[in-house]
Amino acid sequence: MVQPRPRPHLLRCVGQAFKGCRATHSSSDSYRLSIARLLDDKPAYAKDVVVTGFVRSIRNQKQRSFASIGDGSSLESLQALLTPAQAQSLSTGTAVRFTGSWRPSPNPKAQSHELHVADVDIIGPAEASTFPLQKKYHTPEYLRTMPHLRTRVPLNSTLLRFRSDAIAAVTNMFYKDGFTQSHTPIITSSDCEGAGEVFHLDSSQKGPKTKDDDGTFFRAPKYLTVSSQLHLEALAQSVGNVWTLSPTFRAEKSDTARHLSEFYMLEAEISFTEDMNDVMRVVQNTIGAITKDLESGSRVGKELLSVSPDLDLLPRRWRGGSRDFPKVTYTEAINILRSSSHQFEYEPRWGAGLQAEHERYIANELGTSWDASVPVFVTHYPKVIKPFYMLSTAANENSRETVDCFDLLVPEACEIVGGSMREHRLEPLIKSMQACKMIPPGPIPSDDELGELKWYIDLRRWGSVPHGGFGLGFDRLLAYLAGVPNIREMVTFPRWVGRCEC
Amino acid sequence: MVQPRPRPHLLRCVGQAFKGCRATHSSSDSYRLSIARLLDDKPAYAKDVVVTGFVRSIRNQKQRSFASIGDGSSLESLQALLTPAQAQSLSTGTAVRFTGSWRPSPNPKAQSHELHVADVDIIGPAEASTFPLQKKYHTPEYLRTMPHLRTRVPLNSTLLRFRSDAIAAVTNMFYKDGFTQSHTPIITSSDCEGAGEVFHLDSSQKGPKTKDDDGTFFRAPKYLTVSSQLHLEALAQSVGNVWTLSPTFRAEKSDTARHLSEFYMLEAEISFTEDMNDVMRVVQNTIGAITKDLESGSRVGKELLSVSPDLDLLPRRWRGGSRDFPKVTYTEAINILRSSSHQFEYEPRWGAGLQAEHERYIANELGTSWDASVPVFVTHYPKVIKPFYMLSTAANENSRETVDCFDLLVPEACEIVGGSMREHRLEPLIKSMQACKMIPPGPIPSDDELGELKWYIDLRRWGSVPHGGFGLGFDRLLAYLAGVPNIREMVTFPRWVGRCEC
Repeated sequence: MVQPRPRPHLLRCVGQAFKGCRATHSSSDSYRLSIARLLDDKPAYAKDVVVTGFVRSIRNQKQRSFASIGDGSSLESLQALLTPAQAQSLSTGTAVRFTGSWRPSPNPKAQSHELHVADVDIIGPAEASTFPLQKKYHTPEYLRTMPHLRTRVPLNSTLLRFRSDAIAAVTNMFYKDGFTQSHTPIITSSDCEGAGEVFHLDSSQKGPKTKDDDGTFFRAPKYLTVSSQLHLEALAQSVGNVWTLSPTFRAEKSDTARHLSEFYMLEAEISFTEDMNDVMRVVQNTIGAITKDLESGSRVGKELLSVSPDLDLLPRRWRGGSRDFPKVTYTEAINILRSSSHQFEYEPRWGAGLQAEHERYIANELGTSWDASVPVFVTHYPKVIKPFYMLSTAANENSRETVDCFDLLVPEACEIVGGSMREHRLEPLIKSMQACKMIPPGPIPSDDELGELKWYIDLRRWGSVPHGGFGLGFDRLLAYLAGVPNIREMVTFPRWVGRCEC
Repeated sequence: MVQPRPRPHLLRCVGQAFKGCRATHSSSDSYRLSIARLLDDKPAYAKDVVVTGFVRSIRNQKQRSFASIGDGSSLESLQALLTPAQAQSLSTGTAVRFTGSWRPSPNPKAQSHELHVADVDIIGPAEASTFPLQKKYHTPEYLRTMPHLRTRVPLNSTLLRFRSDAIAAVTNMFYKDGFTQSHTPIITSSDCEGAGEVFHLDSSQKGPKTKDDDGTFFRAPKYLTVSSQLHLEALAQSVGNVWTLSPTFRAEKSDTARHLSEFYMLEAEISFTEDMNDVMRVVQNTIGAITKDLESGSRVGKELLSVSPDLDLLPRRWRGGSRDFPKVTYTEAINILRSSSHQFEYEPRWGAGLQAEHERYIANELGTSWDASVPVFVTHYPKVIKPFYMLSTAANENSRETVDCFDLLVPEACEIVGGSMREHRLEPLIKSMQACKMIPPGPIPSDDELGELKWYIDLRRWGSVPHGGFGLGFDRLLAYLAGVPNIREMVTFPRWVGRCEC
């Protein structure tokens, strides 16, 4: 787990920060504080406090006005007390700098303290009649039409800070565990990994003028990566355990709450192991690093709890992160499904993929305890429904060939991780690719026949070692842990079919 | 600075890790250790030590054989002592597991200890006649033809670990300083930011069938991002200071040692400030976080020093990271260049960009002290040679209009950071875009005329505050700090014009 996040620090003397403004309060004893810092520290009394932020709402009374101010560092607003004259030019969205004294509130149930404003500086005005984010409820759909403004909504700023904390937590965990973080490529040469539809780069883009020029920038068709796995496997053979948190792309027309065309995947490869438990342990540690942070009373954790409509939902999910994740084989899962009295729309059948309804049932059945929602590993799926690179299970029954793989399902939601042991032997890998019709049949294919995946096959030629890895849908995990129903709220500028704003 | 990196940890009982292999050494008192761990700890004597790795070289004598083993955790090899019979099937590249005892070496000048091997397991054979990475010097150009194998070269594995350490160092620094890390989009809607040639997505890719369908996936042309700045500016207005470490793309035909088509930029925006020094301080802290780590005696730091041909080069560069970076205005820089007796190929002239030779001269002249190479900020360039979004300097002389911007130049190398204060006022921004012919002239342009940057202009409509930011070429910085002449060595799978392997 990462160290407790330090409170946003004392920024600087105002006089330095705003040299262009009037210098009344630029004396060295007046400091700008983040609102989170003020709310967390709750000093009993402080004078010459400077706060910068945005007006979230204004309430005018005869004798005085109240402004709610936010600066994105907290979900909670700071209450500022002004004269009606001071409040006159303020409206929702206005950027202000307030200087004043911080005093106990006469209404401590509403807020412990309030800022008695002496000086108001309007840094950035906002025309009330046109500002699209007036203080009222806006639907997620409405907010998605303006992603450039959406993070100004306090809850959306909490989600942004949650992502930041989560990145820091996993970076720190992998660092401590001796994993090498790498930046795998985005533009790739292969469109045949079987992970879904790929985006193509425009091949008409002109490249160098040379004799072997086909007129394209890279001299061959190129794509946006669908997974960093193959490249990570190359690195794992060089430096041991590796990971990446990288953008990933799918040109799929899915218009659902859990699909995006551009999303972040956390992928890791664990080298020199034949034991899939080693890989699943890393998955568990990754999720545990984030939930431990949330449970430790972090500001983001408290904010998410404060807005969750179901009092118990998030604590149950976070507790689940530190429990042992149950493991069940696909075959066992099918048996559980078939012997259940539940009426499924699709009949559970060995050899077919698990439908969302099946996944939900298994996750709820095996992952739900009285106080926690625990993710569930389903392992050893049929070979025929999984990609070519997965390792066949050693003791396969002939009729029911499986691979050493796993999906991680979360209760109430869906699959968020997929992983497997990789086929690390040359000949079985080539046979598997032939079975998937990726390369022509026959004894030893030529380099030309191996095509764009020749380099991947090369990894099996010299010093290939047993290894396995996984890909975790980072946005999906964050949405699950924040209790946000739609993944599009977890991404600042979401892209899906037909939609790419800004 | 990050905490000292823990040594790669005790992995696990061998019996668990290799359940398929013979169990002679699977007793619970035999452990697999990373080679870095063994070399760092230097236990005086240890039995039942298990090491996994790859043969870097084999030397056969009559009575015994010596194998150099590496597992990617260290530049240094481990020396293993074998019988000629044990060594028979080993060749460069073979993946092995050695079990044996760790004893003081009779030749402590060469290595303090060696592993007396009792058991050899060949995990992955390597055919000597075809393995492309035999133990000898390979040129960087040769190695670039096989990026999937290149990181197996010890020095390249050091560079990979350096990148990982550097990511952890900056992540930790920004976290502690209260910045929000964000994932800005890769697919973007604008091709007109003026940061260079953009890659286009293939617009023939089919999208949804709807009545407003233009047949493309996103219903409009889309591009790969050339910079996260504009999106970061939106976020900075919501949550305050933000940063990202994101892939960035330029479809430029530059075939040089410091250009890539796909590279990582570290970008940050600092909100609620009018003082460019606040922005430059963050640049300095970012570089300092990495150099402090290197100077603290980290494994990567020691390894880079051990291979640097110039004893003083890296210590000078690393020391520079914690010094105050000198600042000089563009106008002063031009004066320095013009009054110099140095013969430049291009005459330094106010109003023109600085050529590489000019940058080198300024950086060397102002950044070189007796014991350190310190990066140099050049500030306030002419407005006409800078992008539309930069803030005009307040006290501009009419004839020599400048903007509040800076480049960071490093001695012996080139520009690695560019930053500026941003024009945060609506009307000057629109005028500036009109002056750059990005939108038609006239009083208030319509939404249609504003086009794909309408959202960016929107940011100035409601509660816009003074802010500034920068973009740091992460790969360039790493190459500079590692003393690597070509940026292509800092990226595992480099892409440049005509080249996109794997």
